Amino acid sequence: MRTERLMGFSDGVIAIIITIMVLELKVPHGADWEALKNLLPLFLSYVLSFTFIAIYWNNHHHLLHTATRVNGAILWANTHLLFWLSLIPFATAWLGENHVAALPTALYGVALLMPAIAYYVLQTAIVRVNGADSSLAKALGADVKGRISPLLYIIGIALAFVSPWLSIAMYVLVALIWLIPDRRIEKAISER
Amino acid sequence: MRTERLMGFSDGVIAIIITIMVLELKVPHGADWEALKNLLPLFLSYVLSFTFIAIYWNNHHHLLHTATRVNGAILWANTHLLFWLSLIPFATAWLGENHVAALPTALYGVALLMPAIAYYVLQTAIVRVNGADSSLAKALGADVKGRISPLLYIIGIALAFVSPWLSIAMYVLVALIWLIPDRRIEKAISER
Amino acid sequence: MRTERLMGFSDGVIAIIITIMVLELKVPHGADWEALKNLLPLFLSYVLSFTFIAIYWNNHHHLLHTATRVNGAILWANTHLLFWLSLIPFATAWLGENHVAALPTALYGVALLMPAIAYYVLQTAIVRVNGADSSLAKALGADVKGRISPLLYIIGIALAFVSPWLSIAMYVLVALIWLIPDRRIEKAISER
Amino acid sequence: MRTERLMGFSDGVIAIIITIMVLELKVPHGADWEALKNLLPLFLSYVLSFTFIAIYWNNHHHLLHTATRVNGAILWANTHLLFWLSLIPFATAWLGENHVAALPTALYGVALLMPAIAYYVLQTAIVRVNGADSSLAKALGADVKGRISPLLYIIGIALAFVSPWLSIAMYVLVALIWLIPDRRIEKAISER
Repeated sequence: MRTERLMGFSDGVIAIIITIMVLELKVPHGADWEALKNLLPLFLSYVLSFTFIAIYWNNHHHLLHTATRVNGAILWANTHLLFWLSLIPFATAWLGENHVAALPTALYGVALLMPAIAYYVLQTAIVRVNGADSSLAKALGADVKGRISPLLYIIGIALAFVSPWLSIAMYVLVALIWLIPDRRIEKAISER
Repeated sequence: MRTERLMGFSDGVIAIIITIMVLELKVPHGADWEALKNLLPLFLSYVLSFTFIAIYWNNHHHLLHTATRVNGAILWANTHLLFWLSLIPFATAWLGENHVAALPTALYGVALLMPAIAYYVLQTAIVRVNGADSSLAKALGADVKGRISPLLYIIGIALAFVSPWLSIAMYVLVALIWLIPDRRIEKAISER
Repeated sequence: MRTERLMGFSDGVIAIIITIMVLELKVPHGADWEALKNLLPLFLSYVLSFTFIAIYWNNHHHLLHTATRVNGAILWANTHLLFWLSLIPFATAWLGENHVAALPTALYGVALLMPAIAYYVLQTAIVRVNGADSSLAKALGADVKGRISPLLYIIGIALAFVSPWLSIAMYVLVALIWLIPDRRIEKAISER
Repeated sequence: MRTERLMGFSDGVIAIIITIMVLELKVPHGADWEALKNLLPLFLSYVLSFTFIAIYWNNHHHLLHTATRVNGAILWANTHLLFWLSLIPFATAWLGENHVAALPTALYGVALLMPAIAYYVLQTAIVRVNGADSSLAKALGADVKGRISPLLYIIGIALAFVSPWLSIAMYVLVALIWLIPDRRIEKAISER
């Protein structure tokens, strides 16, 4: 019961985050191709962020399914994750409006790194409550994607001050890695 | 279970899209009829888009009901549909603020065409998982509305550069075609 | 099942409408009492509209509970109601920013009248599907509140061009009438 | 059934409140550290308000679970709570944009005090319906946190005109007190 309401609330917050982001696509004053062209960087950063939040929603969905028991630690780890996800629209708009300048590109990387860390904390909290022998714990044994992503984000953040487009390439790479649904957790669920 | 959460999340996103669109109806500075009159094109484009999104919600509801099994492909086809739907408020505001100028009218058509294509992809993904013999597959056998809509959108987009009002007429025509609920799928459900 | 999803979607839309309205309370530039005082009319119009939408949510909740069967007519009558409700934030902001000028006060009345009519249409559609003998139909036999409200709104709209504050008094009166939960429908439910 | 829909609607509203608050973090024009630094007070006030609303969501969740019966008084006490919560984004933005000036700091305290009072009213309404002998009533016997919070808010509001930072310290203190989940009510639920 409690898990369900936690899921419902998280779904609501994530649905709002993914949707209000589009409000940053401010309607241009002109009605010509020039006006549209100026929006292109913002549009592309929107596409990338939409993909990231959709990935989080998908993985979060799988993760919470493994949590048969919810305690205060899980609840606050989840709130912590939602907090960082809520900052992605801001970082997206700053990136897009400044046409991939150095600092906004780095900050965008930070805005992706923080939810990744928060997700790891949430995962740990769930494993702690459900036991190290749980199917989730085993499934996470070789969590390659979870371990490599923060590393790639950090490289991306550092690269922003050298070549912002290399950072973007790094972030896109992480998105591609995660677009493949997390079969480990999916397997753990079907085993239960 | 998974289908339900997919529905719930989609409903949330669609509810937000249909509602935040009204935020583009910026409160005018004056308090007279002139101020209201200037908002009329924006209001009318809001009415049209509200109708389209409500149609999508309604059809999406019927469609997902036929999906007894959800896999990664369906999940991402659904996210893809939500992405394109999320751009309708932007296209609506650009159309309304430029009083049906050529390019915004064409872009509005693109903003309607893309979810139509995404919807078709989602339909195909659901049929693939649930088998070509499924009741949905049969119901879609003669999918006249689904095949004629993209065609009408494309005609509308092309017409925008000749006469934007003819485009609008085309878009309104598609809305009218779809306002009739999809009895084919409804029938398929009741047969199950 | 279908009724539940209709309820869920409506709840989502109404929750968003009631909440985004607060975005019209623009943060003032100053940090003194003067800045706050200027916001007072907007704040009061927000209080009134919040109350109206909460009343609609409450009554809508009771009404849909009486609908055991949902068809296309009910679905579109419901969408029609949500459409008019979605315009209340706009009318509220226009009223509040123009400190109860004549035309905005009249338009606010229209923004309240239209959902009242839409609600009546929805009620009728539900009675038609569930039969004139249904408990809802009987409960509505002497629908005094439902009949008097549109009348009071129309008087309020007309009065706006004489004395806007009299209009506001009319609207507040309707809110007070409805704040009492609809015991007729509640009774009809408990009888089932 | 009714309790569930009340919960669902409240969850929706709270999810929207906690998320739209981030829209006040306006994207700065520059792309340098200076631009980011100017946003710091707004960011910190966002963190504090996010925490408060998450605390309310958590406690509200526990509280409604104890309500086996919902009447009109509970419903309106709940709406009243949501109303005051909906004003927190405004107070947060005013506080953050004015870099902790006296009046915005005091108003922020009022924006925290009012939901605290509304929460108390809701609690009382639930106890009244479910009987003074109910497990909730007993659990609330020594409601230290509930009684001390309004006091601390009032001290914080008064201090704003002496030293706004002392007020903020007071508000942070209340947040810390509440971050510990309400074990009294949790216990009452498990006893049932």
